[in-house]
Amino acid sequence: MSTHPFDQAVALRHEGGDHYRGTPHPAWANMVGPFGGITAASALQGVLAHPQLLGAPVALTVNYAAALAPGEYRLAAVPVRTNRSTQHWTLAMTQPGADGQPETVLTGTAVTAVRRETWGLSDEAMPPAPRPGGLARQTILGVEWLNRYDMRPVHGHLPGRWDGGGEHSLTQMWVRDVPERPLDFLSLAAIADVFYPRVWLRRATRVPAGTVSLTTYFHADAALLARSGTGYLFGQARGQAFRNGFFDQAAQLWNEAGEMLATSHQIVYYKE
Amino acid sequence: MSTHPFDQAVALRHEGGDHYRGTPHPAWANMVGPFGGITAASALQGVLAHPQLLGAPVALTVNYAAALAPGEYRLAAVPVRTNRSTQHWTLAMTQPGADGQPETVLTGTAVTAVRRETWGLSDEAMPPAPRPGGLARQTILGVEWLNRYDMRPVHGHLPGRWDGGGEHSLTQMWVRDVPERPLDFLSLAAIADVFYPRVWLRRATRVPAGTVSLTTYFHADAALLARSGTGYLFGQARGQAFRNGFFDQAAQLWNEAGEMLATSHQIVYYKE
Repeated sequence: MSTHPFDQAVALRHEGGDHYRGTPHPAWANMVGPFGGITAASALQGVLAHPQLLGAPVALTVNYAAALAPGEYRLAAVPVRTNRSTQHWTLAMTQPGADGQPETVLTGTAVTAVRRETWGLSDEAMPPAPRPGGLARQTILGVEWLNRYDMRPVHGHLPGRWDGGGEHSLTQMWVRDVPERPLDFLSLAAIADVFYPRVWLRRATRVPAGTVSLTTYFHADAALLARSGTGYLFGQARGQAFRNGFFDQAAQLWNEAGEMLATSHQIVYYKE
Repeated sequence: MSTHPFDQAVALRHEGGDHYRGTPHPAWANMVGPFGGITAASALQGVLAHPQLLGAPVALTVNYAAALAPGEYRLAAVPVRTNRSTQHWTLAMTQPGADGQPETVLTGTAVTAVRRETWGLSDEAMPPAPRPGGLARQTILGVEWLNRYDMRPVHGHLPGRWDGGGEHSLTQMWVRDVPERPLDFLSLAAIADVFYPRVWLRRATRVPAGTVSLTTYFHADAALLARSGTGYLFGQARGQAFRNGFFDQAAQLWNEAGEMLATSHQIVYYKE
């Protein structure tokens, strides 16, 4: 098995049928529970490792019902309907509750498909940005999973002063795995969740916040992932509405050549 | 029971527990099966009618696994985890297959929450647009569900000539129910899906296309819905990437006063 911390974290033990076991990896710890992106990738791994898989991921939705505890979880990835070229999946993660009975910690769905070459284009050009080589790597101490990424913000840095003076919610940055790792669907699913809560930027105020639901659409196929290799991705994320405890966050990811790889959306709980 | 065609279409028969039965309504017929928006609303109705419901909808994802057949469907809406202020739901619709056994036609998840007043703002202003009263209502013959909406395009009309000359994928329009009906979570969920496939606009070419997965985030709460009343909504939708058989569509909906009600995203299959 690969010794890369990403591969270690998404490793599952197949128990047969639609059932797996896995364990949150301490290298991906967030403030409470693991980084949501690695949990999303672990759920998707249940689809990709399934013997009945048809095609490649097109859509993934995960809902975080509770923070994962440090111990083992069980994952069910069920191909509930297989059509000629698309396949529909349900996802569920459970962990034992206080009484030892399984409690749901994640729900989700995925769609995979056999993709065929068609007309296509990107209608959202990658914004102009300086190359990553000349930019400083963001260093934030105290949150372990942030050490798993080389993030180089271009716009919308984490506020240096929490003074309530925010004016927008847009972050643009280069990002790649540390150590470098060839891009695949799993790492792309994780990277879709690397943007810190937009409410922190919009208000320059650090309030408690956590993702409730995350949906990612994969525009990349295997060939485009292979072309992206170990290069940086360029990502941007922005909030559209902040209201009564929840805001959304819309994100786009391109490879270094400016090809769009994924679009992603999430809704995030916030306090105050 | 209301005689409004929307209420007729989303009506469910509660069979006890998490189980319902419903029937696609012919007033909402699309080219194949019913309009996806009314199916999404019907699935959400299983959540809203559930005796254990906590709070109001925050997120809804539905995946269209197959076109609904004209006959009865069964819906399961299961509150798999209830926290202090949030509740997580799984959704599944089945219809009998050729062998009489239930086959999945829709999967989904929803999150509901008790929302509390917090700081908030919209970071996506409603675009400037002429008022709906002075605009022509779009008339498209031959697709029944389109008669259920008063749609008044401002920008990005359905192409008048299918000549391959498309230049963008943005539609902006006013829309409301016909006959008028006070906005609620169900009608908002349906209206999130009223935009015709972006690939038709982008290419000015009418290729087969159908929504595979749809996610809507509800920024409106009951008070904001009540303020919106029977007024028009202003909606816009745009594609970000079209690639090898799938494109995405990102949409926003505001009320006449310019308050953001919902953001929605879908991924759509297309041919050629």
